[in-house]
Amino acid sequence: MISKSQIKLITGLQQKKYRDKSGLFVAEGPKVIRELINEGLNLHLLFATDTIDSFPENTELISKNELQKISFLKTANTALAVFEIPQEKEIKETGLVLVLDAVRDPGNLGTIIRLCDWFGIKQLVCSIDTVDCYNPKVVQSTMGSIARVQVNYLKLEEFIDNSAMPVYGAVMDGDSVYSRQLPSEGILVMGNEANGISSAVEQLLDYRITIPRFGDIQATESLNVATATAIMLSEFRRVTGR
Amino acid sequence: MISKSQIKLITGLQQKKYRDKSGLFVAEGPKVIRELINEGLNLHLLFATDTIDSFPENTELISKNELQKISFLKTANTALAVFEIPQEKEIKETGLVLVLDAVRDPGNLGTIIRLCDWFGIKQLVCSIDTVDCYNPKVVQSTMGSIARVQVNYLKLEEFIDNSAMPVYGAVMDGDSVYSRQLPSEGILVMGNEANGISSAVEQLLDYRITIPRFGDIQATESLNVATATAIMLSEFRRVTGR
Repeated sequence: MISKSQIKLITGLQQKKYRDKSGLFVAEGPKVIRELINEGLNLHLLFATDTIDSFPENTELISKNELQKISFLKTANTALAVFEIPQEKEIKETGLVLVLDAVRDPGNLGTIIRLCDWFGIKQLVCSIDTVDCYNPKVVQSTMGSIARVQVNYLKLEEFIDNSAMPVYGAVMDGDSVYSRQLPSEGILVMGNEANGISSAVEQLLDYRITIPRFGDIQATESLNVATATAIMLSEFRRVTGR
Repeated sequence: MISKSQIKLITGLQQKKYRDKSGLFVAEGPKVIRELINEGLNLHLLFATDTIDSFPENTELISKNELQKISFLKTANTALAVFEIPQEKEIKETGLVLVLDAVRDPGNLGTIIRLCDWFGIKQLVCSIDTVDCYNPKVVQSTMGSIARVQVNYLKLEEFIDNSAMPVYGAVMDGDSVYSRQLPSEGILVMGNEANGISSAVEQLLDYRITIPRFGDIQATESLNVATATAIMLSEFRRVTGR
């Protein structure tokens, strides 16, 4: 059985203001939930429609109808959990730090967090107006990677200004990323879906880099920010290894 | 004014069987529609809620309510067009040919078509069970690129068997794509979101290639097929240029 106050709490967590207030977020599906538990996140509530392999013993069994009521998905999975949002840690001046300037699409942020996990990027800095990483759609599309990547929301100008690391930014008219010597430590900035990097941040870049277009140069479309990030991170890692 | 039979036609085009029957598909939004017109696709119907820059004179003006009625989007854009599906051309044994084995997600296929356009991949071969490229969600997420990439739906085993080109496939346990010499002409196979390349197709690969993981090797998650395709195409183009 799920109580009324639990339903109210969980459905509220769709909104950022209730996540901020309660310090909690929702994850759905056994795979994602298992990854978050394995990574040591604190579990607050856990519901499932059936006994699930390697789930804690105190998992509360509820009906499919009850799960659908609290699920953020069109078709609920078999489990839903509420976790505590981990405490924000300080950024360290080490390794490759990915910076996102006003990325708005939850699916894009989720994909980018998954890419960070793949490429061993431990620190992701987001501008204040980037979509919240505990948005349920983001959590879902990270597939559990969110527990392995530290995400900080900061004023980008301040953060970049105070950093001693070289600052690379993905722009439309920079040097080819294939021809440039890339460092193993530094900051890589990726911009907003429609407008790219904001002009205030662009002024702080040390190096402007671009993924060359090999297709029709008349075409107006740019790459999606998640696929562009995939290519950029691949280039940094290819060149510098671990 | 939009007629009842037009509404019936357009809403029917959400389904593949009606697209196949009529040879028509829907595109929404001035930007996508303009790109498709510029690429020479035959326009069948064009509706807009207002006069739109560089749109043909015979654009039919309709109300926002009327547009919302025929739109496939939650919130309709300002224009909707019906185009003829171009005739399928034969595949040529030239350049880099991308092959998709059972990619099911419309967003992934759309992103991959956009990547083909960026990297100058002119030919995309999809298995019969890959999502239809004229699915409205695919058309929308290609952002117009679909007019510049030839897409064929074929039996993959037959196609690969009959090709003289070298066949590369993205697998989890192959050689690092960074260390391998890549050709300027060949076939690159990317697999299904959950199951990768089917075993029948995997047997036909000449080279098994992998994007190395730099993060925690314990983590179970793989890359999304669209981001993996981005990295693979970037590697082929980086090495071989045009």
